[in-house]
Amino acid sequence: MTRLFNDPATFTEDMLAGFLDANADYVVGVPGGVVRATETPTGKVAVVVGGGSGHYPAFCGVVGPGFADGAVVGNIFTSPSAREVVSVAQAAHGDAGVLLITGNYAGDVMNFGLAVQELRDQGIEARYLAVTDDIASAAPQDAAKRRGIAGDFTVFRCASAIAEEGADLGTVEAAAAKANAATRTLGVAFDGCTMPGADRPLFTVSPGTMDLGLGIHGEPGVSSHEMPTAAELAGLLVCGVLAEKPSGAANRIAVILNGLGRTKYEELFVVWKTVAELLVASGHTVIQPEVGELVTSLDMAGCSLTVMWLDDELERLWISPADTPAYRKGAVATVAETRRAEVTRQTGAVAILTADDASRAVGALVAQGIAAIAGQMIEAESDLGRIDAVAGDGDHGRGMVKGATAASRAAAAAVTQGGGGAAALTAAGEAWAAKAGGTSGVLWGAALNAAAARLGDRGTPGDRDVAEAVRAGHDALVELGGAKRGDKTMLDALGPFVESLEQAVSDGISWRTAWLASSEVAEKAAVETAELRPKVGRARPLADRSVGTPDAGAISLAMCIHAVAELIEERS
Amino acid sequence: MTRLFNDPATFTEDMLAGFLDANADYVVGVPGGVVRATETPTGKVAVVVGGGSGHYPAFCGVVGPGFADGAVVGNIFTSPSAREVVSVAQAAHGDAGVLLITGNYAGDVMNFGLAVQELRDQGIEARYLAVTDDIASAAPQDAAKRRGIAGDFTVFRCASAIAEEGADLGTVEAAAAKANAATRTLGVAFDGCTMPGADRPLFTVSPGTMDLGLGIHGEPGVSSHEMPTAAELAGLLVCGVLAEKPSGAANRIAVILNGLGRTKYEELFVVWKTVAELLVASGHTVIQPEVGELVTSLDMAGCSLTVMWLDDELERLWISPADTPAYRKGAVATVAETRRAEVTRQTGAVAILTADDASRAVGALVAQGIAAIAGQMIEAESDLGRIDAVAGDGDHGRGMVKGATAASRAAAAAVTQGGGGAAALTAAGEAWAAKAGGTSGVLWGAALNAAAARLGDRGTPGDRDVAEAVRAGHDALVELGGAKRGDKTMLDALGPFVESLEQAVSDGISWRTAWLASSEVAEKAAVETAELRPKVGRARPLADRSVGTPDAGAISLAMCIHAVAELIEERS
Repeated sequence: MTRLFNDPATFTEDMLAGFLDANADYVVGVPGGVVRATETPTGKVAVVVGGGSGHYPAFCGVVGPGFADGAVVGNIFTSPSAREVVSVAQAAHGDAGVLLITGNYAGDVMNFGLAVQELRDQGIEARYLAVTDDIASAAPQDAAKRRGIAGDFTVFRCASAIAEEGADLGTVEAAAAKANAATRTLGVAFDGCTMPGADRPLFTVSPGTMDLGLGIHGEPGVSSHEMPTAAELAGLLVCGVLAEKPSGAANRIAVILNGLGRTKYEELFVVWKTVAELLVASGHTVIQPEVGELVTSLDMAGCSLTVMWLDDELERLWISPADTPAYRKGAVATVAETRRAEVTRQTGAVAILTADDASRAVGALVAQGIAAIAGQMIEAESDLGRIDAVAGDGDHGRGMVKGATAASRAAAAAVTQGGGGAAALTAAGEAWAAKAGGTSGVLWGAALNAAAARLGDRGTPGDRDVAEAVRAGHDALVELGGAKRGDKTMLDALGPFVESLEQAVSDGISWRTAWLASSEVAEKAAVETAELRPKVGRARPLADRSVGTPDAGAISLAMCIHAVAELIEERS
Repeated sequence: MTRLFNDPATFTEDMLAGFLDANADYVVGVPGGVVRATETPTGKVAVVVGGGSGHYPAFCGVVGPGFADGAVVGNIFTSPSAREVVSVAQAAHGDAGVLLITGNYAGDVMNFGLAVQELRDQGIEARYLAVTDDIASAAPQDAAKRRGIAGDFTVFRCASAIAEEGADLGTVEAAAAKANAATRTLGVAFDGCTMPGADRPLFTVSPGTMDLGLGIHGEPGVSSHEMPTAAELAGLLVCGVLAEKPSGAANRIAVILNGLGRTKYEELFVVWKTVAELLVASGHTVIQPEVGELVTSLDMAGCSLTVMWLDDELERLWISPADTPAYRKGAVATVAETRRAEVTRQTGAVAILTADDASRAVGALVAQGIAAIAGQMIEAESDLGRIDAVAGDGDHGRGMVKGATAASRAAAAAVTQGGGGAAALTAAGEAWAAKAGGTSGVLWGAALNAAAARLGDRGTPGDRDVAEAVRAGHDALVELGGAKRGDKTMLDALGPFVESLEQAVSDGISWRTAWLASSEVAEKAAVETAELRPKVGRARPLADRSVGTPDAGAISLAMCIHAVAELIEERS
């Protein structure tokens, strides 16, 4: 289990501070992550990798010559926010564009996707690629839905190496895509990892068995097997990966036998002995294999085998030199480098529009509502984490607390500065997205922002205004998230709530009374998500396990609605 | 726990085969360990490190330019045999001598010490140094008795770096001694590691507590403490290490925050944040710190802080380039290197002297006796491991099985080739020392060899001959091991056995009958070692815990004597 921390809530910040101090020769911190300690040279494409933390040396440990230019560092197992992605990409960018790369997870895809738009709006040419190497997470015909696990490493490496050679953005993106198309990973888990401050692992594996098809965020595997010998495991992994050899691929391969954290080097070498024999027997030539810990999952027990089939270009990139905090290879050519000037901290302040007195009162009410939501989330954090751990990565409670508390502080600050209802909601939305990260963070941010735009900063909104603001939030969430009703997401609670609220208001009931009644509708709908079979998608390919458990996002949404309802009751 | 293995008995061999395959560009295997893939250049001192395995990347992971020339690889947590040390040193030696370095453990000190003598006999100038950085393992006035833990890394590194510069053997040895004198480590353990194939860890730490003063072989700590926060732990480690600052030391320091295996990178960085702050606040300047896994202990949970106080020479060596399988730094100057020619496997054959028919019958009896001992040890393996784990590293049962089974095979082969009593005992002794490794392996080897010399290969020995042969074995063990009666070692069983045997024979009783009676004396004496307080020495500085538990070496010795007694009874 994870034992060493101060306040679990600041684990990522503390970790990053220690990492930056220990590696000051290589990296400097910027808001949202790290960049190389030297300026990106003129004409060089910047490669920015990232995702949640908990995977060291991925991702901040591979920033340096021959590898990444920057890494966005989210909370443990949680996507960083779009704002954090933009911040790191801006700092890493020279003048030749930015390629963003992450594993294929819904939160990363949304946040990095939003960041690409924003970077382009700022005149920075940006592209994004999601790695899809995990063959256990979806069938071959759904390869685009597969997750990224240890294959992140081969793809990040090749894209970074060709960028170091001076290739243009299109060429870098093409190399990344080619590396991703040539990379396959299969993994196994023997035991789950424990989040800082948690008293139990995210999942457990029965003694004497192993799970096939691990996730690197504490997700359990797709099937359970009797614990094999090292040689049997080697056979299982090699056969599984080779069965998905890309058509037309040659026989020279880069290989990673990756330990997840608690499966140690000696054990990996015992497995490698047989892996190497089997790969040679199958006619392959292994080029500079890596046996060790490259993409971990805190203290998870397990390992994975990654094969990247090489052509001349990928082989050249794979064996090229690199010099980073955690991955070094060969001799990096020393060029005259410019040490980066001190990076100034961005202010996250949101402009406050002028509100009238009535709207200021609305702003105060919004701030109280968000504070009530934050209180509710703090109380529910561990319960939400446990529900989420059934099919997800167990970070939902943590994300909701981070988002709601930041939103509460931002809304209160906006009110203090004279902001009205829209200003308070906008500030809350920006803060929520920035601090929560992950999928729910970006969706909550978008919903609050859309509601703010409908509500405005003038006068006291009527009952219909409130209902329409909630509808606007709902619609923003549908547009950004791409989910439909019945997909087992927060939408399954928000949809019935909005409909109930609209119906009641159109029946002439006040929004306050309508909210109380609709809150019960939302709670009932959230609980009923237990009966749904989730849509198999990027985020949750293994979510079949969650049938019988309600969706954590729907539950937390209903709890937030309920917290506001309690506030309404108190004040009536 | 350690989950991935084939036959636990061949774990080290399998591990080494996988390691060599994955790192074929860096290293080649030789009997007993690994050496660089390139020839040692003319005029370069060879630095050979080593000890038991289970500590990766220590020790075979740091063989390469800028670091070690070779590593002797013992079984898990077990010293390699003197023969293995000689084999690796011979292969690594160029023409400028060899410095051997290990942590300070009795088995390593004995085996590497014997190897130095043998290498000198062969005309190879050899020196040996034992690292003593663990401040928790003995008081400052007994600093020479301290164990070597993560400080192995700083000492190995500095000695290797100055050898790479071309220094002569005396200068290399002096730099190693200076680095050792300037290095202090303090560690903590949160949970023990599990030997391959074992079903429980070598020790456990009560939930919510930690052990201060870890060993890297699964030894528990010296005292138990409430589990601290990361910042509190940082304070404890920094204060503990700085309290032992060498007099006259300057304020520039090399620092390692080392993870034992299951305490992961993110946690170490959280601790490092405060360690760095405290070191700066205490007026120190930290030079290129290492935060990660450098000297592990399988999957043990815990970490340690190592500080080496630098002068100009040590600082130059600490930051110099290195290029090895698991530790790379800067750019190693490329020189014209000669790829090593295929290393041929040494034969371990022992010359068989001509024996007469009577002695051949004795040889057959010896071989049967050793086979009975081997059978007894296989049966008792896990019990012996558990007894040994109370104060030692839990490897005693494994070592006895490895040694006795190899000895049994060797004795049988010697008999098949016409060997008599002495030939069978000599073959058994050589094989035992070579295969068991560790402290007990080298002692058993020496004892059997001495007994063989007394027994001879002519005629049937009389009762007095047998007693004198056992006495010769006893004396060899005293001379090599340096222990006295009452130190809680195997001597506490062997001594009473020899005395009883001698007395009975001098009373006119046949050796067979005397052996049966004396076997009971040995068993009683072995059990009574539970009441002894062990001598605090190199091997077992924490052995106070073992009061109430008998000594594993004494118990196994009594079991071996008993196995021979059973054979005598069967045949009478």
